[in-house]
Amino acid sequence: MDPEEFRAHGHRLIDWIADYRARVASRPVMAPAAPGETRAKLPASPPLEPETFDAIARDIETVVMPGITTWQHPRFFGYFPSNALLASVLGDYLSSGLGVIGLAWQSSPALTEVEDVVTDWTRQMLGLSEAWSGVINDTASTSTLVALLCARERATGYSLSREGLQGEPRPLVVYTSAHSHSSVEKAALLAGFGKAHVRQVSQDDRYAMQAAALAAMIDEDVAAGRRPCAVVATTGTTTSTALDPLDAIGRVARAHGLWMHVDAAMAGSAMILPECRWMWDGVEHADSVIVNAHKWLGAVFDCSLYFVRDPEHLVRVMSTNPSYLQTAADGQVKNYRDWGLPLGRRFRALKLWFLIREQGVAGLQARLRRDLANAQWLAGEIGATPEWVVLAPVPLQTVCVRHEPPGLGGDALDRHTLDWAARLNQGGQAYVTPALLDGRWMVRISIGAELTEREHVAQLWALMQQHVGADFSPPVTQGPP
Amino acid sequence: MDPEEFRAHGHRLIDWIADYRARVASRPVMAPAAPGETRAKLPASPPLEPETFDAIARDIETVVMPGITTWQHPRFFGYFPSNALLASVLGDYLSSGLGVIGLAWQSSPALTEVEDVVTDWTRQMLGLSEAWSGVINDTASTSTLVALLCARERATGYSLSREGLQGEPRPLVVYTSAHSHSSVEKAALLAGFGKAHVRQVSQDDRYAMQAAALAAMIDEDVAAGRRPCAVVATTGTTTSTALDPLDAIGRVARAHGLWMHVDAAMAGSAMILPECRWMWDGVEHADSVIVNAHKWLGAVFDCSLYFVRDPEHLVRVMSTNPSYLQTAADGQVKNYRDWGLPLGRRFRALKLWFLIREQGVAGLQARLRRDLANAQWLAGEIGATPEWVVLAPVPLQTVCVRHEPPGLGGDALDRHTLDWAARLNQGGQAYVTPALLDGRWMVRISIGAELTEREHVAQLWALMQQHVGADFSPPVTQGPP
Repeated sequence: MDPEEFRAHGHRLIDWIADYRARVASRPVMAPAAPGETRAKLPASPPLEPETFDAIARDIETVVMPGITTWQHPRFFGYFPSNALLASVLGDYLSSGLGVIGLAWQSSPALTEVEDVVTDWTRQMLGLSEAWSGVINDTASTSTLVALLCARERATGYSLSREGLQGEPRPLVVYTSAHSHSSVEKAALLAGFGKAHVRQVSQDDRYAMQAAALAAMIDEDVAAGRRPCAVVATTGTTTSTALDPLDAIGRVARAHGLWMHVDAAMAGSAMILPECRWMWDGVEHADSVIVNAHKWLGAVFDCSLYFVRDPEHLVRVMSTNPSYLQTAADGQVKNYRDWGLPLGRRFRALKLWFLIREQGVAGLQARLRRDLANAQWLAGEIGATPEWVVLAPVPLQTVCVRHEPPGLGGDALDRHTLDWAARLNQGGQAYVTPALLDGRWMVRISIGAELTEREHVAQLWALMQQHVGADFSPPVTQGPP
Repeated sequence: MDPEEFRAHGHRLIDWIADYRARVASRPVMAPAAPGETRAKLPASPPLEPETFDAIARDIETVVMPGITTWQHPRFFGYFPSNALLASVLGDYLSSGLGVIGLAWQSSPALTEVEDVVTDWTRQMLGLSEAWSGVINDTASTSTLVALLCARERATGYSLSREGLQGEPRPLVVYTSAHSHSSVEKAALLAGFGKAHVRQVSQDDRYAMQAAALAAMIDEDVAAGRRPCAVVATTGTTTSTALDPLDAIGRVARAHGLWMHVDAAMAGSAMILPECRWMWDGVEHADSVIVNAHKWLGAVFDCSLYFVRDPEHLVRVMSTNPSYLQTAADGQVKNYRDWGLPLGRRFRALKLWFLIREQGVAGLQARLRRDLANAQWLAGEIGATPEWVVLAPVPLQTVCVRHEPPGLGGDALDRHTLDWAARLNQGGQAYVTPALLDGRWMVRISIGAELTEREHVAQLWALMQQHVGADFSPPVTQGPP
C-alpha cells in the first residue's frame, strides 16, 4: 500500500470509525457472538497472494463487528470504564503513522521528551509532589511486577547482581489484601516470592486493609526469621473501589523498611479532583504508584502511568547497556528502556498529550464529577428501594448491588444474582459485571463511560428492575455470566 | 471531540501521514534535535482549559517533528528495520478506534479469535509444526522474561505455589551466549536467577554458540550441585545475525531436561522463505520461540509473537481467575490474559491480519528476498574494496563492516570507526549503528526498511566511502555516536 492508497483507504476508515462512534448506542453492548463464531469465518491458512483492501474492509463488518463488545456504549457498566476519547485516538494514530521506536533517546528524541513532560503534567494533575518521576507502561499488571522486582532488589541489596533470589538466606514477604487486584499476587509469584510468602492482610467492614493487622503480621514474620519486603495498598479496589488507609499503612511500611506500592490504577484518575484527594492521603509515603490513564481518564489503551520516587534505583534494576544501544547523548538524556521491562516502546505519550490538551484539566474534571454524581444518584435510588441492597461504600463511581427477594439466600440467591445479570447482559441493552463479595455473588455497576449521562444510568436501573422480575424461569447460565 | 469533529480532524491527519510517508526520503534520517530541545518547547504545566485541535496539530510540525528519527526512511540502516507498512497501520487504527480491551474472551470475542487465527497463520508461514500455539506480546524482552519464568517453574515443579525461588535447595542455572540480546540477561536477572547463575557459553568463529561448550558447562554445574534450567539460543543475533546451532543445542537441552528458548526476534521473519529455514534447523526441539512481526516483516510496533509447545504450562504459570473476570464461556474459549504478563490487551491481531492479507505471503517473501540480495551485494562491494573489511558472515540482511586504514589499530581504530559513523549519521542522509565485535567498534549496516532499494544501499556505500575520507580532523564524538 503506497501513501496515495493509504490516503484513500484511510479516509474511508476515518469515516467508518466516526460513524461507529456516532451510533454506538444503537449496538448491543455485549458482543452477540458465540464461542468459535468469529474463528469459523476465517480461512485456516494465510493468503498466498495479496487481497484488495476492499475485501479486508468488508470483513470488518462481517467477521469482526459481531464479535465486538461495545466498550464505548453509554450503557457499558462492566469491569471499569475504558474510555478512548477521540482526541486521544488521533494521538495514537499519529504514533502508528510515524512508526518510530524508542530504544535509545537518539532513536526518537521527541518520543522520550514528550513522555517526560506529559507524565510530569499528569503528576501535577494528580497532586503528587515533585519527588515523583513518571513513565508510561502498558498495564498496571506490568507496573506492579516492576514495583515488586524493585522492592525485592532494594531489600536484598541488588541480589540480581549476585546469586539472585536463590542465594538469599531468609525469605522475603509481601503483604497485600484479599481485595487487591489479581495482578498483585500474580506479580509476587512471578517475582519469585512464592505463595507461602504472600500475606493477605485482613480488611475492615469497608473492605479496606487494616494497618494494625499489617503491623501484627510483620511482627510475626520477623519473629519467625522472615524478612518483610513490600506492601501493596489499593486506592479503589476492583471489586468495590475500597480505599486502603495509605497514611496508616505508610507509617507501618516506613517503620519496617518496606517498599510501599500503591495501586490506584482506577481511582487515580479521580485524584485530578481536589475534593477526592483525601482518598489517598498518605500516598507520599509510597515508593511507587500506578494510575491508568487508559481507564476513566480517557486515553486509549494502553497507557498506564508508573510513578517512582527513586528513578536511579529503578534504572539500576532494569538497565541494560549493550554497545549497539549506546549513543553520545547518553549522559544528558533519559533512556526509558531502563525504566521498565520492554526495550522498545511506542510513542504512547502522544495519546495522553492530545487528550489533556483537547480536554483541558477542567474538561476532564467536569466529566469525572458528572460520573461521581451519577453513582451517588444510583446508590440513592437502589438504597431506597425494597429488596435491593447497596453492599459497599460508594466513594467513587462503582456501585455494588444485590437484589435480595425475601426468603432467598445462600446458593439460591447466588443463582438469582447470576441469572438476572446474565439476562441483562444477553439482552444487549446494558452490560454489568458480577463479582464475589464476602463469598457471595453481587453485581458491580461501574459508571464512567464517556457517553454515559444520567438518563443512561436511569435506563440501567429500570432494566435491572425489569430483569429481576423475570426470575424463577429455568436458569440461563451454569457458571458465572 | 465528537464523531463529526473526529471525522474532520481525522481526514486531515490521514492526509498528513500520507504526505509524511510520501516524503520520508527528503527528511534527515537521524533527528536533528539536541537533548532537551523538544522538552523546552513544551509548557511546564498542563492546560486548565481545552485547546483547539488546530493548536495541537500545529505543534506536530514545530514540537514533534524535529525530534523524530525517520525510521521509515529508505536509508535507515540502524538497529534492525522496524517497518510499519501502511496496511498494518490501518489495522492499528481500527483497533484504537474501536477501543475494545481483551480481559476475558467475552470482553471482545473477535479480539481473541482473530489473534488465535492470525498467530496460527504466522506459524504456518514460518514452517513451524502444528505443535506450536502463539500469542502476541509487546516485545521480545517481555516474551523472553515469560519464557524464563516458565522454565523456572517447570524446573521447580511450580515453586511459585509454594515457597517461591526462595525455598529452592539448589540454584538453577541459565545458559546463553555473549552474543544473545541484552534482554536475555535482563530477563534472567529479573526472574531471580542471579548473575552468578547466568552462563555465557563460548562461541565459534562465526559468533555462534558452541553446543559442546554448553554440554561441558552443564556437566560442571551438575557436578557442583547446581541445576541446569534453561538455554536461550539465538537465530540471528543483534550484533551480527549469527546463527546458534539449534539442533545441536536442542539435543543437549533435551538430554539434560533444559527449557530451550529460541530468540528469533529478527531472523524469524526470514523463515517465511523456505530457502532460509536451514538457519533454524532444530527449532522443533525448543519449548518457546519468539518472532517479532514488528521488525522486518512489517507489522507496526508492537507485535511480538511468542510461540509455545505447552500452553497449559504457560497458563498454569500466568493464570489469575478473580471472580470479576469469570464468564460462562470460560471452558470453551482462550483467555489470553493467562498467556502472558499483562491482564488487558489491545486488538493487536488486526494489524497483523491486515498486513498478511494486503501483502499476501508471496508479497512479504518478495520483499525479504530483495533485502537479502541487497545485503549480499553490499557485502560483495565492501569485501572487494581495499581497507574495508566485512567482519562476520552475512546470512541475512545485516553487514558488519570496518574501514581499516593501514597503520591504524587499537583505540585509534575505534576512534576512527566511531567518528566516521557519527559524521555519517549527523549528515542526516543515512543512519547506521556502531557496535562492539570482539571488543572493537565496528558498524552494523542493517538492510530491510520497506522503501530500501538497491540504489539506496549504493548511496549508503558511497556515503561511507566519502565519510571515512574526511578523517583525522578533530574527533566529532567523545563516546559512541
